[in-house]
Amino acid sequence: MKLMRVTDPDDVMKIISEQFGPLETEKLPLGKTGGRCLSETITAPEDVPGFNRSTVDGYAVAARDTFGAGEGIPALLECIGEVLMGKTAPPIKTGQCCLVHTGGMLPEEADAVIMIEDTDLTGTMIQIFRQVAPGENVILRGEDLRKGDTALYKGHRLRAPEIGMLASLGIVNLDVYRQPVLGFFSSGDELVDYSSPEPEPGKIRDSNAPALFYLSEQYGTAFRYGGILPDDFDIFLEKSRSMLEQVDMLVFSGGSSVGSRDYTALTIQQLGKPGLLVEGIAIQPGKPTLLANCCGKPVLGLPGHPVSALNIFSIFGKAIIDRLAGREFKSFRPTVKAILARNISSKSGRRDYVRIKLEETANGWSAFPVLGRSGMLRTLAEADGLLEVPAAREGISAGEAVEVSIWE
Amino acid sequence: MKLMRVTDPDDVMKIISEQFGPLETEKLPLGKTGGRCLSETITAPEDVPGFNRSTVDGYAVAARDTFGAGEGIPALLECIGEVLMGKTAPPIKTGQCCLVHTGGMLPEEADAVIMIEDTDLTGTMIQIFRQVAPGENVILRGEDLRKGDTALYKGHRLRAPEIGMLASLGIVNLDVYRQPVLGFFSSGDELVDYSSPEPEPGKIRDSNAPALFYLSEQYGTAFRYGGILPDDFDIFLEKSRSMLEQVDMLVFSGGSSVGSRDYTALTIQQLGKPGLLVEGIAIQPGKPTLLANCCGKPVLGLPGHPVSALNIFSIFGKAIIDRLAGREFKSFRPTVKAILARNISSKSGRRDYVRIKLEETANGWSAFPVLGRSGMLRTLAEADGLLEVPAAREGISAGEAVEVSIWE
Repeated sequence: MKLMRVTDPDDVMKIISEQFGPLETEKLPLGKTGGRCLSETITAPEDVPGFNRSTVDGYAVAARDTFGAGEGIPALLECIGEVLMGKTAPPIKTGQCCLVHTGGMLPEEADAVIMIEDTDLTGTMIQIFRQVAPGENVILRGEDLRKGDTALYKGHRLRAPEIGMLASLGIVNLDVYRQPVLGFFSSGDELVDYSSPEPEPGKIRDSNAPALFYLSEQYGTAFRYGGILPDDFDIFLEKSRSMLEQVDMLVFSGGSSVGSRDYTALTIQQLGKPGLLVEGIAIQPGKPTLLANCCGKPVLGLPGHPVSALNIFSIFGKAIIDRLAGREFKSFRPTVKAILARNISSKSGRRDYVRIKLEETANGWSAFPVLGRSGMLRTLAEADGLLEVPAAREGISAGEAVEVSIWE
Repeated sequence: MKLMRVTDPDDVMKIISEQFGPLETEKLPLGKTGGRCLSETITAPEDVPGFNRSTVDGYAVAARDTFGAGEGIPALLECIGEVLMGKTAPPIKTGQCCLVHTGGMLPEEADAVIMIEDTDLTGTMIQIFRQVAPGENVILRGEDLRKGDTALYKGHRLRAPEIGMLASLGIVNLDVYRQPVLGFFSSGDELVDYSSPEPEPGKIRDSNAPALFYLSEQYGTAFRYGGILPDDFDIFLEKSRSMLEQVDMLVFSGGSSVGSRDYTALTIQQLGKPGLLVEGIAIQPGKPTLLANCCGKPVLGLPGHPVSALNIFSIFGKAIIDRLAGREFKSFRPTVKAILARNISSKSGRRDYVRIKLEETANGWSAFPVLGRSGMLRTLAEADGLLEVPAAREGISAGEAVEVSIWE
């Protein structure tokens, strides 16, 4: 029997990074760019803010008019009025000030704002009980961004703060990388569509298609479902080839038997050069995974077991999608700290992902391994997340501090 | 001057949990339920799997036929054929076995599978070099879920594993809580739409509307934008009242000046009972936040500063949305571990959120505070996430291990 050649998970990530790159670009209105990555570097077309603004409610002053002022010896300034929000500030002269609200514009002659609580009003005269330094309580014109500054670099992913910043610059259309289109096939003669009311004996419903549809949408792709491929080589190849032409990335969820894997591998080899890059990954669940580059497009063969398929897609499928979407290859795996409640054993030499249910205790989270075999979705549905056991370790003991990746 | 009454952030969470609850329910096809929460408890209508399945490639046997077998004394069984994928297994008798693939159905008389590598084939006779226990390498009918078992409880959020599990049960339509509709107004005479090419002096572009639009979509709401409200009480009230009738949750992004806050507070008090619950939160950035319950609907008044608005919305806005969406109130804040690269000072008595840029080093992530004032979006766009400094602490020293929440 042929042994499976397995690749280290970190090496698979390197292969993904080296083999695949961003798709073409498109121009989109700002409101539709959330989650996309910039394909251009953005330079600020103007100063932000565009004028000197107060950061407090107070009086706009020339700082030198307050020098020496204190509790016992207030400075006295004439208040000549109020800066209306959204309006140009009236000019002030030496010895004068004007009321300004948070976010309001400073008069040209003012360089600081004294907070209302440090003043007292008597008619139109303001007593000032504290001296202020030039620039105090003011955001200067261009302090956030100066015209010509680089606002965001190519490859930057647009989250809410970036969208806000681009809006503040008045940038309404921008160049981003195109959204990847993901083609998906389930395969195996044992599968029937999940809407089948009563599968015949020996048949099971295809649960991977709807689960991966939701995940791939979360990861920012457009999902195209090709149906369930029968175990017929010619149909398998023809349908795969035709789908590959229409999409940016092809994903199979195959049978996990050796025969079925060989089948998918054979098809992938026919789909284009350079072909298979990975024939298995030193990871559990999800070892029997195939990864190929067919004519420049990534092709991922997921194991058929639902839990394995979801685990692999959430790690390597997501990495491929991020790459096509032009996302900077700096990836975080945020985790929740917990104390392991029961011993976990693990085979050394492969990276294990253990399903974990988190329970709140007085001392923080307690991590309970969810028992059950790899094929079982119920165990994943019961789990809040996964705990990674590194390949070098043979297990983790109850009481150890661990970090759990949450399934969102 | 009136002092702001501030509420502890944990108490604000409690108020949200007590005051608001899930919306009505609706029936949706499974493929559209991702991210929603179940409004019914789901009972398995059938066994999963529906038949005894092999978990390996091997020979289906009656375990007792292998008892006593070993390397030197193989058991000998007649192979009567192969279980085709998706087909009923042929019956076997004592002394017989049949070839079965991973996921294939076991004959009724078989209760275990022996892996191919532990056998040798000679004609139709199989030599078996190991004994197997009953149940070995088999998932029994109903082992994942037995008919009548509770599959998922009411309030459970549907992620990819849950969708897969429901698909495997053939559940194609289900009852979930309705998606919350969020009405949003910006306010302040200084604001102009972000598409304005050249705002007049004193005006700034409204960056909160597009940034919050993206965030609220990520959090699973439908966003309805009401425009920029002028500082005119009657118009403000009329538009707010009309919007509140059409939505499940109302959000204002207001000016941060005392006057402007009082204005929003006054409007909120007119919108319905019981009215204002929170007038400020012991948190930075984002202290001047208003929270109300107006006729059973949540109304959130965000500070106008973009960074404060995003911070508050990502914590408390999300909590309100989760509540309306029927999500179980068990919330995780996954973080990335890092070593703080520079000292952070913080005012005791309030919870501070410090913007952090993460840099990879040989020893893991290094956390650099991003400097700049609270109003500045550039500092948030430069940051990978936020570091929470608890109210009890006055700062964190360089070199300490910290946990950073990532901005997605």
